[in-house]
Amino acid sequence: MQRYTVAVLVRNQFGVLNRVTSMFRRRRFNIDSLTVSETESADYSRITVQFAGEEVTKQQLVNQLYKLPDICSIRELEGASSISFELLLIKLRNDPAARDSIRAAADAFKAETVDYTRESIVLRVTADSVRIDSFLDLMRDYDILEICRTGVVSLERGAETIRSGMQV
Amino acid sequence: MQRYTVAVLVRNQFGVLNRVTSMFRRRRFNIDSLTVSETESADYSRITVQFAGEEVTKQQLVNQLYKLPDICSIRELEGASSISFELLLIKLRNDPAARDSIRAAADAFKAETVDYTRESIVLRVTADSVRIDSFLDLMRDYDILEICRTGVVSLERGAETIRSGMQV
Repeated sequence: MQRYTVAVLVRNQFGVLNRVTSMFRRRRFNIDSLTVSETESADYSRITVQFAGEEVTKQQLVNQLYKLPDICSIRELEGASSISFELLLIKLRNDPAARDSIRAAADAFKAETVDYTRESIVLRVTADSVRIDSFLDLMRDYDILEICRTGVVSLERGAETIRSGMQV
Repeated sequence: MQRYTVAVLVRNQFGVLNRVTSMFRRRRFNIDSLTVSETESADYSRITVQFAGEEVTKQQLVNQLYKLPDICSIRELEGASSISFELLLIKLRNDPAARDSIRAAADAFKAETVDYTRESIVLRVTADSVRIDSFLDLMRDYDILEICRTGVVSLERGAETIRSGMQV
């Protein structure tokens, strides 16, 4: 099992997201994270999916996705040749005894405090998935109330774009 | 038509994302952005959806979602009582004539340069959707090669969490 990140450029047609998630379900891939939102053109959306699986079934999945209506381009984003980031919001109990060590970890990860009450603190971190995971691991020493992360977004390094591979 | 942000806490069961997106499709809601990823517990995922619609149909949608299997809690996140952020990656042509004014706008929005080649520049911005939209609008004066944004993630201010409203 390996972890893959795939970007799918789709035409903004009704139900297209549903067709994509259905294909993952039918192929028995569990989605680790998924983001979908607008692109540089109002006619297209970009879906970024992180999932785990085998190389051979991943290739089958990509081939099947290409057969769906309104799929314009699919690109696998690999570590060395792409830049990937996630956004994490984490709500912690505002425990005076823990405050200094939370602050020290937050500074190390350039986390920003975006909400602060007597009872709770919300920190925001933007980093790659590995760093987000490390930060979360540190925070498990404290009382975590809630976590919300966006899932990964990824672009290729350099001037290449997903449209360079447009098939439809 | 109004724009809504809804967080849905779901049990990590196979096909649950698909059931949620199907419900939006059936109710004829177009999804503006959607993120799904892990939470503070490995048993649950959190789906955040931004969509536009009417108050009455939105309420019907929420009621229908609650009837689906593996849906644990749904919360509408409203501007004043919640904190919402998105992450944007934008790839621009590295045009020497535009470089200074791109840099000035990037500084104003605390954008970071995360990739830089002779041909292209990738900037990363973390902000609320309104500021992301403003930044994108500024960037339209330049040669945008590619955009990727995560869609919004949102937490309530203070110590309340989505589990406070857990029905299942």
